[in-house]
Amino acid sequence: MAGSTFGTLFRITTWGESHGRGLGVTVDGCPAGLPLQEADIQEYLDRRRPGRSRYATKRSETDEVEIWSGVFEGRTAGTPISLIIRNADQHSKDYSDLKDVFRPGHADLGYEEKYGLRDYRGGGRSSGRETAARVAAGAIAAKVLEEIGITVKAYTASIGPVVCDPSSFDEEHLMRSELCMPDAEAEKKAREYLEECMAEQDSAGGTVHCVVRGLPAGIGEPVFDKLDAQLSQALFSIGAVKAVEIGDGLFAAMSRGSENNDQYLESGNGPEKTSNHAGGILGGLSDGSSVLIRAAFKPTPSIAQTQMALGSDGEIHPLEITGRHDPVIVPRAVVVVECMTAITILDLMMRNMSARLENLRKVYGGYS
Amino acid sequence: MAGSTFGTLFRITTWGESHGRGLGVTVDGCPAGLPLQEADIQEYLDRRRPGRSRYATKRSETDEVEIWSGVFEGRTAGTPISLIIRNADQHSKDYSDLKDVFRPGHADLGYEEKYGLRDYRGGGRSSGRETAARVAAGAIAAKVLEEIGITVKAYTASIGPVVCDPSSFDEEHLMRSELCMPDAEAEKKAREYLEECMAEQDSAGGTVHCVVRGLPAGIGEPVFDKLDAQLSQALFSIGAVKAVEIGDGLFAAMSRGSENNDQYLESGNGPEKTSNHAGGILGGLSDGSSVLIRAAFKPTPSIAQTQMALGSDGEIHPLEITGRHDPVIVPRAVVVVECMTAITILDLMMRNMSARLENLRKVYGGYS
Amino acid sequence: MAGSTFGTLFRITTWGESHGRGLGVTVDGCPAGLPLQEADIQEYLDRRRPGRSRYATKRSETDEVEIWSGVFEGRTAGTPISLIIRNADQHSKDYSDLKDVFRPGHADLGYEEKYGLRDYRGGGRSSGRETAARVAAGAIAAKVLEEIGITVKAYTASIGPVVCDPSSFDEEHLMRSELCMPDAEAEKKAREYLEECMAEQDSAGGTVHCVVRGLPAGIGEPVFDKLDAQLSQALFSIGAVKAVEIGDGLFAAMSRGSENNDQYLESGNGPEKTSNHAGGILGGLSDGSSVLIRAAFKPTPSIAQTQMALGSDGEIHPLEITGRHDPVIVPRAVVVVECMTAITILDLMMRNMSARLENLRKVYGGYS
Amino acid sequence: MAGSTFGTLFRITTWGESHGRGLGVTVDGCPAGLPLQEADIQEYLDRRRPGRSRYATKRSETDEVEIWSGVFEGRTAGTPISLIIRNADQHSKDYSDLKDVFRPGHADLGYEEKYGLRDYRGGGRSSGRETAARVAAGAIAAKVLEEIGITVKAYTASIGPVVCDPSSFDEEHLMRSELCMPDAEAEKKAREYLEECMAEQDSAGGTVHCVVRGLPAGIGEPVFDKLDAQLSQALFSIGAVKAVEIGDGLFAAMSRGSENNDQYLESGNGPEKTSNHAGGILGGLSDGSSVLIRAAFKPTPSIAQTQMALGSDGEIHPLEITGRHDPVIVPRAVVVVECMTAITILDLMMRNMSARLENLRKVYGGYS
Repeated sequence: MAGSTFGTLFRITTWGESHGRGLGVTVDGCPAGLPLQEADIQEYLDRRRPGRSRYATKRSETDEVEIWSGVFEGRTAGTPISLIIRNADQHSKDYSDLKDVFRPGHADLGYEEKYGLRDYRGGGRSSGRETAARVAAGAIAAKVLEEIGITVKAYTASIGPVVCDPSSFDEEHLMRSELCMPDAEAEKKAREYLEECMAEQDSAGGTVHCVVRGLPAGIGEPVFDKLDAQLSQALFSIGAVKAVEIGDGLFAAMSRGSENNDQYLESGNGPEKTSNHAGGILGGLSDGSSVLIRAAFKPTPSIAQTQMALGSDGEIHPLEITGRHDPVIVPRAVVVVECMTAITILDLMMRNMSARLENLRKVYGGYS
Repeated sequence: MAGSTFGTLFRITTWGESHGRGLGVTVDGCPAGLPLQEADIQEYLDRRRPGRSRYATKRSETDEVEIWSGVFEGRTAGTPISLIIRNADQHSKDYSDLKDVFRPGHADLGYEEKYGLRDYRGGGRSSGRETAARVAAGAIAAKVLEEIGITVKAYTASIGPVVCDPSSFDEEHLMRSELCMPDAEAEKKAREYLEECMAEQDSAGGTVHCVVRGLPAGIGEPVFDKLDAQLSQALFSIGAVKAVEIGDGLFAAMSRGSENNDQYLESGNGPEKTSNHAGGILGGLSDGSSVLIRAAFKPTPSIAQTQMALGSDGEIHPLEITGRHDPVIVPRAVVVVECMTAITILDLMMRNMSARLENLRKVYGGYS
Repeated sequence: MAGSTFGTLFRITTWGESHGRGLGVTVDGCPAGLPLQEADIQEYLDRRRPGRSRYATKRSETDEVEIWSGVFEGRTAGTPISLIIRNADQHSKDYSDLKDVFRPGHADLGYEEKYGLRDYRGGGRSSGRETAARVAAGAIAAKVLEEIGITVKAYTASIGPVVCDPSSFDEEHLMRSELCMPDAEAEKKAREYLEECMAEQDSAGGTVHCVVRGLPAGIGEPVFDKLDAQLSQALFSIGAVKAVEIGDGLFAAMSRGSENNDQYLESGNGPEKTSNHAGGILGGLSDGSSVLIRAAFKPTPSIAQTQMALGSDGEIHPLEITGRHDPVIVPRAVVVVECMTAITILDLMMRNMSARLENLRKVYGGYS
Repeated sequence: MAGSTFGTLFRITTWGESHGRGLGVTVDGCPAGLPLQEADIQEYLDRRRPGRSRYATKRSETDEVEIWSGVFEGRTAGTPISLIIRNADQHSKDYSDLKDVFRPGHADLGYEEKYGLRDYRGGGRSSGRETAARVAAGAIAAKVLEEIGITVKAYTASIGPVVCDPSSFDEEHLMRSELCMPDAEAEKKAREYLEECMAEQDSAGGTVHCVVRGLPAGIGEPVFDKLDAQLSQALFSIGAVKAVEIGDGLFAAMSRGSENNDQYLESGNGPEKTSNHAGGILGGLSDGSSVLIRAAFKPTPSIAQTQMALGSDGEIHPLEITGRHDPVIVPRAVVVVECMTAITILDLMMRNMSARLENLRKVYGGYS
C-alpha cells in the first residue's frame, strides 16, 4: 500500500499539497442510507479552519467542501464519496527561498531523499493542510457513529507547560474556547504563554485528549489490528504527534498490578467498574468503558528565529522562516484527532460485524 | 483484514493459543537468498523464553522453533517461511476456575463479547505467549536488515519507579543483565523493587527503549503509513503496551520550537546534527539519524491478591489468580519490541524501493 | 502483499512446498461459533487426494489434516485456524536431474529469475500440491456458507475433446464418478481418451463447471472487487487454469443484446427469469440467480515424451520427465475450484455486511 | 477493502457516477521523477472518448483531464496524483423512467439490493463511464512501463461473429481503424454487421486481444497474486467482460501436453521458444515471452427493443430503453483493457523489486 489510504472497510484515500490546486479525499465503503450534505462536513472543517484565531496561521482559507460523488438525493449511495477543498490563499512565493534548504523539524530532507525531488512550497504534501481532507472524511464517520449511539469528543488538555485541571472540566467553556480548552483558568494562562512565545518568535506544543463514549465491548481485531494499535497508527499519522497514550499511558508503567487493574464494585445498578486505568481497552479490544486517548504534539517547527539548517549543497545555512505559521497547532488539531479516532472506530466496528456466525444470520438469514 | 497479519511486502501471519498445540507464524515476502537456519531464530526466542529468571513465569517451555517451509539448501527461497513452536508445558487445569469469570486487566470480557465464546485457558489467543511467533519472524527481519547495514537494539529503560540513567549506559552489563537493563545500579534497585512486589503478591510495569541505527533518510510512507505511525501500531499491538513515544515524546509537547528543532553544526566531518529530539523521524519519514522509540508496559494484570471481578453471570466474584505468571514482563518484552521494530522497518524499506523511477531502472534496466 | 494470502475478512494464508515437511494454511477471520472438526475438512481433502484413481499420480499421500489452533471445544473461536498436512511420500531423488533444466510448461524459469534460486523438487511451491491447503480452508468456508443456505458444487465438464452433455446431467452418477463427470456416456469416452494419452506418454486438459446456489442479490464490491473479478482471480490462481468464463462466457461476445439479456416472464409464482446467460452476475454483483462459473485447465505439463528444454547453462537439453504425474488433473481440480469459489463468496458476503446503515443497526442497535 | 481501489504499490482509487459532477482517480505510489503532463493522459482518454464514431454513444463529452496534485515542475513527485474529468453532457432526464425498473443485463437490481437505494441516472456508478478514470490512471502506468522498455498494446479481435484474421494483422490499418481492428477486411464486415444490429435496434459484443512485450521473466506473485490471476481480476472488473483467456485459453483444455508445452529450438541466436501457447505465463509468473491476453465483452445491454423487465413493485414491465447508447462498446474498451493491463503489470513489477536480497543491496547498498 502506497500510504495515502487508511482503513479496511471504511476506507479513506487523501490527496493534495499545500500549494497545489486543492486537497481531497475519497471515502470508500461508507454505509449506504446516511443522510449527508455539505453542511454536515463543513461544520467540522470550520473547527479546523485557519485564520480564526490570533494563535493560528494568518493564511485565509474558507475551506469550503464540495461533494463530487457518492451522495444521491441527500443520502449516501454506498459508492465512493469524493470530497474536494480548493486552495485559495496560496502565497507560493513565500517559499521560493526554501528550495535549496531543509528546514529543521520538517520532513524536507526525508522527501528529497525518498523521491529525489520535492514540492518545497509550504511543505507540499507534508503540510498540516493535508489534515483538512481527513477532517472532511472524519465528519462522515462521526455521523455514522452517532447513528449507532457512539460519540467521539476531543479537547486541548495542555499547551506548553500549562495543563488543564480535570476537576475544572467545563463543557460550556469548551464550546466557545478559542484554544479548545475546557478549563477557563488554564486557557488564560495558556494565552499568556503563547503571547510570550510569539514575542520571542517561538512556538509551543501541547496535548489533546479524546474520549469515545458508547462503544460496545469487543471492538478491535486481535492481534495486530488491536483497537489501540489502530488508534495509535491513526494519531501518529498526524504530522506533529510524538506520543500516544491509552488510559493511564506512561503512568501505567510506574504503577503496580493491584493499582492498575480496574476492579468491580456493587452499585445500585449492578456491578460497576470503579476506575478506568485501562482507558477502555484491554488486550486490544474495547472493554465497554469509555475509550481514553491522549496525543502529544510537538511545537510548530516553523519559527522566525534564526536556525542553522542543512542546505542541498551539503553546507550549513542560517535560516529565518517567514511565511504564515501557527504559533501553536494544538487547538486546530483537536478536530483532527477526533476525526481520525472516528474513522478508526467505525472501520473496526464494520470489520467486527462478521466476527460471529450469528451476525451473518442476522444479516442474511439462514437456519437457526 | 482479519487482524493476525502485519506488513505489506514483508508480511507475517501468526496463529496459536497459549494452551493449544503450539504457536506459529508464516513469513511471506522474505527476500530470497538469505542464509537462514533454525539457530538464527532460536537465538532470539531464547531471549524471550520463560523460566530463565526468578522474575519470570515458572512455565517451562523450550520454545524450540521448527522451519517447515520456505528455506531451500540453507537459503530463503522467496516462498512463505512457516515457523512452528510447540506448546509443551501447558497446565490447562490451572485455568478451569476462570471459565466463568472475566479477569481484571485482561481481554476476557472483550473476547466473550466479540466472539460469543472464548478459550479461557491462559488467555487463549490474547496470551503474551503469542509474541513468541512474532519474535521468530522478527529474527528473520533483523537478519535481512543486518545484511544492508541496519541494526535494531532494545533494552529495559525502567521497571516501576526505577529508571536507568542514560549516562550510566553499560553495553557490557546489558549483555548479561537478567532484567535487560544497561545500568547495573538501576538493576540492583529494580530487583529490590520486584522482590517487594512479589512479597506483596503484586506485579510491576516498566518501559523499553529501542534504537535503530543505520537507517537511510526517506523511509516511511506519507501520509497514513508514516514510519512512526507504523512503528506505533507495531508496538501497541503488543498486549500490555499503554504508550508509545518517538524521540522526546511527551516532553516535546512541553518544549518550544526553538528547543525542539534539531539544528546543524559545523563539525570536522561536515555538518552534524547537534541533537535528536525528533528521534530520527520528521513528517513520518526517517531523517538519517538514529530512530529512538519508547514503549510503556503496564504491570502484569495476573496477580495473586484478591480482586473483585465480573462473572459471566453478571455478578461480582472475589478472584485470586493462581497459575504461573510473570511478576514483570518487561525484560522478556525487550526482544519483542526489537522484533516488531525490525519487521516494521524492513517492510517499509521494501515498500520504499519503488519510490523513485531510477530505482526501477536499477533493478530492471531500461533506457537512461 | 506478498502473494500467499487471499481474502479480506475471511482470509487465508498458505505455505509449503511439494517436497518440504508439509503444507499448511492459516484461516483468519472465520466467524466464531461454527461447529468444526477435522473430519469436516478431511472429507474435502479426500476428494482431492492423489492415488485414488488410475488417472491420477501414484504419489501416495493420506493428506490427513491436523487442526493446530482456532477451534475451542468443537467450535471455531474467531481466532486464526491453523491447518497442517504433512508430506509423507516424497521421492525427492526423482527430481535431482531437474536441478539444471527448466521444464517446458512449468514455472521453473520464472522462479529462478524471480528469486535467484528454486526448490526444484516436484516444483517446490509451484506444485499443484499447494492446492491441498486451499481445499482445507475452503472446506471451512463451504461449511459457513451452508449455515446461511448457500451451496457450491463443481464437476468435470470436459476432458480433452470429450464434453459432458448438459441434458444428460446425472447427479447420482456424479457422486461416484472417478472423473467427477455427471454424464456416464461422456465419462466412458473420456476414459478411452485418457488411455490413449497415457499410451502415448501424453496428458490431457479439460474444464470444470461450478454452480453457486442460494446467493442473495447484491454480493460483490464495485468496481474492482466485483464478484466475477474476485472469482476469476481465485480460479486463475490455480496453477493450470488458462481461461475463466462467467455465464455464457465467450459465447456472449458473439451474441446480440436481445439474445444475451435475461428477461422476465410471468410464472405461477410471480416474475421469473427465463434464462441465465449472465451466469448470475451483472455489473459485478450477484443478481439473485445461480452463479455459473467455468474454468479451463491446460494438460499436465509433466509428460514422459522427450521434450526440448532450456537448461540453466543456456543450452537446449532433451528431457524425459520421470517421477509420478497425473495424466489429467481436472478431476482432482474439481474440489479446488469448489473451495476457491466458496472462499471468495464467503469473503464477499462478509464484506457486504456493512454496505447498508441498517445492517449496522441490526448488529449494533442504535436509534431507528 | 471497499472495492474502488486496485493495486498494492501502484494503487488507484476511482470515484464518480455517470451523471454526477464528474469522475476521478487518485494514483498513489507512482514512482517519482516521471515527466508527466495532462497531454500524456489526454491522448489515452481521447481513444476512449464517446461521440467519435457512428458506432458509439452520441453522448458528447470532451473528457478533459485535470491534474490536481502529485506533479511538481513537470515531474511526478511521488505523492498521490489526483485526476479529475468533469461530466458535461448529462441528460439525466432521459433516465427518470428507469427509477422503478431494473434493466435487463444491468446491475440495477444488484445495487438496489446491496445498498437499499441507487442512482438510476445512466447506471450511476455501474456505468461504463467509470472506466474513463481507469484510462487516466493507466496512461500513467503505461508511461512508466515505457521508461523500462515494456509496451502494452490491445486491439479489437472480433465483433459479433466477425473475427480478425491473425495472418492479416496490419499495424498501419489499426492506427486509423474506427473499430480498432487490425484487419481491414474484417473491419468492413464488422461495419456491415453493426449496421444490421442498429437497424434492428440491437447491439453486439466482441473480443479484445492484448499483448505485453518486453516483460522480464519472474513477474507475478505466487500463489494467489499470480500474474494471470491479477490480470484476470483487472479485466473482469471491466463491466461487460464475461471471459478472460491467457495464451491458448479455452483451447488449451482440448489440447495435449505434448502440443501445449512450449519447447525450445536452436536458432542462430541461441535457444528460442518455437511457440507461445502459454501466453507468456507459466505457474503464474511471466516466462520471458510476450504476454497474450484475451477478454470477451458481452453485447451492450441497453437496447431499444422492447424487453420484459422486473419493476421495484415486483411486477413485470415492458421496457424500451431510450437515451444514448453504444451499439457496441468493444472498440472503446480496447484502451481500457490496455490500461488495466498496464496498471497490473506495473504494480507487480514494483512488488517484485524486493523478491531478491541482492535487489535490496542494489537500492540500499550494504555489504556484498
